[in-house]
Amino acid sequence: MNSIQDLFQRLTLGVYVIGVVNGETRNAFTAACVMQASYDPLLLALSINRLHSCYGTLRRGQAFSVNVLKTGQLDLAAHYGRPARDDKLASTSWMTGITGAPLLRAALAWFECEAVAEYPAGDHVLVVGKVIGGEVLDSVAEPMSYRETGDLDGASTLYPARFEPK
Amino acid sequence: MNSIQDLFQRLTLGVYVIGVVNGETRNAFTAACVMQASYDPLLLALSINRLHSCYGTLRRGQAFSVNVLKTGQLDLAAHYGRPARDDKLASTSWMTGITGAPLLRAALAWFECEAVAEYPAGDHVLVVGKVIGGEVLDSVAEPMSYRETGDLDGASTLYPARFEPK
Repeated sequence: MNSIQDLFQRLTLGVYVIGVVNGETRNAFTAACVMQASYDPLLLALSINRLHSCYGTLRRGQAFSVNVLKTGQLDLAAHYGRPARDDKLASTSWMTGITGAPLLRAALAWFECEAVAEYPAGDHVLVVGKVIGGEVLDSVAEPMSYRETGDLDGASTLYPARFEPK
Repeated sequence: MNSIQDLFQRLTLGVYVIGVVNGETRNAFTAACVMQASYDPLLLALSINRLHSCYGTLRRGQAFSVNVLKTGQLDLAAHYGRPARDDKLASTSWMTGITGAPLLRAALAWFECEAVAEYPAGDHVLVVGKVIGGEVLDSVAEPMSYRETGDLDGASTLYPARFEPK
């Protein structure tokens, strides 16, 4: 691990399976960069790689779910972290709520969001979602932390060796 | 705690003291909503209340620091969480680096950012910063989690009792 990755690992993040939907097309992917952005209205912000295969579906469908993973659910994090374009949902039990986005029955909690804005941010896009529903499914379990996933996402190859000068 | 706050507490966040600078004016405030937004370039996203007294300084100075707090540093989180407009930095040991934004010597780690974009997000603003420097100061300490701060920020009064319908 280089020193810049070591530094970025001091940011505290969770691990989520983001569900996307457009008509009858659904898929999901693992993400760590999710945070609350506003109280009134209730907004979440999500950072997604603009080249991600799920981004088009999110953009067309304008809705997404945020499924909070529990500590220990590394199998789910890995499954939904795969870059495959196939329907990763086939092997997981899920339901739909208000938006049609997939809600994983094994999650600790889920949020349903209507996409209300998207903004460029380098090689990613910040998607802002209005939270229109949500539920805690397991009030005892602890959420998974991003640090728990080690190098599951291959991030170690993505950090530069040094900062660009100002 | 109402059920919506209970749900939002399942998002995993850290606790940071965000330093702002504009010429010789410096201040700092406690924030939880910070995440990585991009790898190339290295960007962080920060959510700040648009009415916050530090927002003007950030906007004019276009630079900020992100000081990662350690578990147990609730005194610092509370101090910089106060809404006071006075110079909260007077009682803390800090230094400056590339941007002039305050870097707390007691932090676990810090990042220095140049503000490169800001986007509206409800009652907050998403500020995107290019990370141009940073360092881990204490490689043994654990970062503070937002949940550790309880209701230090008074968030319990900010969540609505129910979701707005779609």
